[in-house]
Amino acid sequence: MAAYRRYVLRCGNHSNGAEEKLSMGDVAARLAEIVGDKNLLTGEAISEDYAHDEALNAEPQRPAYVAKPATAEEVAELLKAATEHNVPVTARGSGSGLSGAARPREDGLLISFERMNQVLEVDTGNHVAVVQPGVTLAELDVKTAEAGLSYTVYPGELSASVGGNVGTNAGGMRAVKYGVTRNNVLGLQAVLPTGEILRTGGKTSKISTGYDLTQLIIGSEGTLALATEITVKLHPRLTHGATVLAPFGDFGQVMAAVPAIVSSGLGPHILEYIDNMTMAAIVYNEKLELGVPDKIRDTSEAYLVVALENRENGRLHEDIETVGELLGELGATDVYVLEGPAARKLIEAREKAFWTAKAAGADDVIDVVVPRTAMPPFITKARELAMAAGGGAIGCGHAGDGNVHLAIFCKDADKRKQLLTDIFADAMERGGAISGEHGLGRTKASYHQALEDPAKIELMRRIKQSFDPAGILNPGVLFPEGTA
Amino acid sequence: MAAYRRYVLRCGNHSNGAEEKLSMGDVAARLAEIVGDKNLLTGEAISEDYAHDEALNAEPQRPAYVAKPATAEEVAELLKAATEHNVPVTARGSGSGLSGAARPREDGLLISFERMNQVLEVDTGNHVAVVQPGVTLAELDVKTAEAGLSYTVYPGELSASVGGNVGTNAGGMRAVKYGVTRNNVLGLQAVLPTGEILRTGGKTSKISTGYDLTQLIIGSEGTLALATEITVKLHPRLTHGATVLAPFGDFGQVMAAVPAIVSSGLGPHILEYIDNMTMAAIVYNEKLELGVPDKIRDTSEAYLVVALENRENGRLHEDIETVGELLGELGATDVYVLEGPAARKLIEAREKAFWTAKAAGADDVIDVVVPRTAMPPFITKARELAMAAGGGAIGCGHAGDGNVHLAIFCKDADKRKQLLTDIFADAMERGGAISGEHGLGRTKASYHQALEDPAKIELMRRIKQSFDPAGILNPGVLFPEGTA
Repeated sequence: MAAYRRYVLRCGNHSNGAEEKLSMGDVAARLAEIVGDKNLLTGEAISEDYAHDEALNAEPQRPAYVAKPATAEEVAELLKAATEHNVPVTARGSGSGLSGAARPREDGLLISFERMNQVLEVDTGNHVAVVQPGVTLAELDVKTAEAGLSYTVYPGELSASVGGNVGTNAGGMRAVKYGVTRNNVLGLQAVLPTGEILRTGGKTSKISTGYDLTQLIIGSEGTLALATEITVKLHPRLTHGATVLAPFGDFGQVMAAVPAIVSSGLGPHILEYIDNMTMAAIVYNEKLELGVPDKIRDTSEAYLVVALENRENGRLHEDIETVGELLGELGATDVYVLEGPAARKLIEAREKAFWTAKAAGADDVIDVVVPRTAMPPFITKARELAMAAGGGAIGCGHAGDGNVHLAIFCKDADKRKQLLTDIFADAMERGGAISGEHGLGRTKASYHQALEDPAKIELMRRIKQSFDPAGILNPGVLFPEGTA
Repeated sequence: MAAYRRYVLRCGNHSNGAEEKLSMGDVAARLAEIVGDKNLLTGEAISEDYAHDEALNAEPQRPAYVAKPATAEEVAELLKAATEHNVPVTARGSGSGLSGAARPREDGLLISFERMNQVLEVDTGNHVAVVQPGVTLAELDVKTAEAGLSYTVYPGELSASVGGNVGTNAGGMRAVKYGVTRNNVLGLQAVLPTGEILRTGGKTSKISTGYDLTQLIIGSEGTLALATEITVKLHPRLTHGATVLAPFGDFGQVMAAVPAIVSSGLGPHILEYIDNMTMAAIVYNEKLELGVPDKIRDTSEAYLVVALENRENGRLHEDIETVGELLGELGATDVYVLEGPAARKLIEAREKAFWTAKAAGADDVIDVVVPRTAMPPFITKARELAMAAGGGAIGCGHAGDGNVHLAIFCKDADKRKQLLTDIFADAMERGGAISGEHGLGRTKASYHQALEDPAKIELMRRIKQSFDPAGILNPGVLFPEGTA
């Protein structure tokens, strides 16, 4: 705490908790004192980028202020000032979120972590990295590769920030082997809205010493505390990898193959399904040449993508052969082993499925999660509901995790709202949840409010209040505007 | 909720929140109405077993009432009654905890989950099991083995209950590969002290839909909510296993070997160190024949135990050879490959280290966690502190996780308290925590209160209040008696 600086506050002592009405200019001046004039933007100086993330249905909104702090202490001072003057605060990493959790409020302060973008340490003795929240996954990947290690959360967008991933508990394709963000973040430095700077967890993968604040903050979408330093677990980077693509005539067979592959103990790090419409779109968009003959393509309802990695090339190829045989037994109409560039291209194309859906005019993109065995009936039902609403639902997803990404085509906003309500309700009845990895953000909060057990929502609201009694952190996110 | 029964309450409507003073007999009668006469014990009918868990320093205390519910609805009614009459409630699984979290209060109700002991489902499609909290790890192991699957949390005491493991976030030897309880519990049915029955998470390994209540309840040691049903993740049961024992002349070398083994990508599921004193004690107690010649034994400061498992026997043996070579390069004075019974005996003996320490007259057993690389200086310091206090500290631990189990020998209670304070403070300065897997319980809560950042403790207290406004759940545990 030696670096802690106290600022001379222009607006006196607010320890009595009374809110002092300051003009926007006065608030801006106070915020500028904390981060420096050039790191505080207002009015026209705020670029349009700060008005949105990548959610399809969160109306862009420029905030009143954008602050770019450089230290946890500056974040703490910003939050104290915001609490005193009742200014809503939204945190922003790279703005690549899909639920509007980084869309600020008109009267709000957007804290952008773009200057807190350093990999502070890659610790090869403890197999962890310590990073600032603005570090992108791409940057972290470069640094960890140098040490033969890997941060194994790949949510499909390498420009995403680690801080943003903490906010949404990002998942991605490798979760089937390595788990999601919450399984790979060991500790945080985090700032409470009241300005306290806490350290939770650390460079250890187990702690049973009080409530797990790290886990509570992960996935809280900027509504409880802001992470200013993140300690992540690293894994040995296995150098040999190959990918198998298997078309199936029947969607149910694809899904029935998944538990068999998991049970085999082969431990795939990617286990994805892609439906025929989505495959056609990504093959066309990305100009992929996968070697699948027209005849097989035309009779395929969906594809399974299985990727394996190993420290030894010989074992990898033995295992790939075993997977191929297994897939044949499980009903695949053919099996294609993709290596090097072809495999990489397919995975990259799959990662861009969101952009493909957006380009195709999708009206929303959802990422429902259900128990793995409930995927076939859930997807069938979702398609039926979409068709009944005069629209469509196509997609792909993390087959190993039960995480279904659906592009929803339904222009009429009211009908679409009802359609999503029905789809989410169906997923929840099957033991699933609204979001597997994108978060509720601003765009799915009202569905959660309408469909979730009120006792759980009330409990979450009380937890929120225990962190943020003034309610300044990301109002409208997780809890619909005006309800928290 | 069809099974939900409403009980005729003998004591009227308490919805105004006022506490009505009932005699102990009246309270007992009300509790007996809920669980049935034969499942409610009072007075002399309460056996001494219910007065303690296995903590060495939690004074046994018989509770006023022991209730043995059969359903979540009965648990809910018990908690509602306890809230109304301000009766403190302690939950008990198998009573194998080491921190006194299951030691009840004199005026309290002990809820024993011994009748809620069913494995409700082993779901091979989703690779999960759904169990009641009173199920023991031994029972779950039998059921999952039948399906070729495994619940991979082995905290060393197979009579432990899954519910108890959720309470303390139990770890154990296989955590280095599979993680601890919180990494392997996907969902809960849990009862709030106010009687609401919640479902959190489910049969899916990823969810980003609001705060993760599952994770918050795990490790909360019965202070937030009581789990009445637990959904756990299962892994394929790999059938081939072998164990390598490597003596080292120097403790620092043992620890330096650990990151090298993890980096290799061989993925051991056990990576333990045992100091020479502890090894001598367990070899003597368990009559182990490990084949280590006297000469090597006499010059060894500590041992490393590395266990590997594989789906193929051939690969296992190749990997064991690789580990052996690596250990030789890293300074092991010899390498012993233990197979079948010898390996099993060593692991079992190591699991009994607590009982060995207890039999040897240890005055306390602690399980500090520190970053892995901090283990050598931490252990050296702890020994110095113990010697300076006229006592001793010997042990073993989960080398892969930085989790150090020390048997503390120091008869004088005041000196021991100061010694533990100094040891915990040293661990925390090195980025560690008081407990890696045993929990704070009743016996370590005051150290936490004295050493932890007050802002974190205050936040935990507010979280506690958001679940348990009346403060009836396990007072004295996590927060010292009278402070929560």
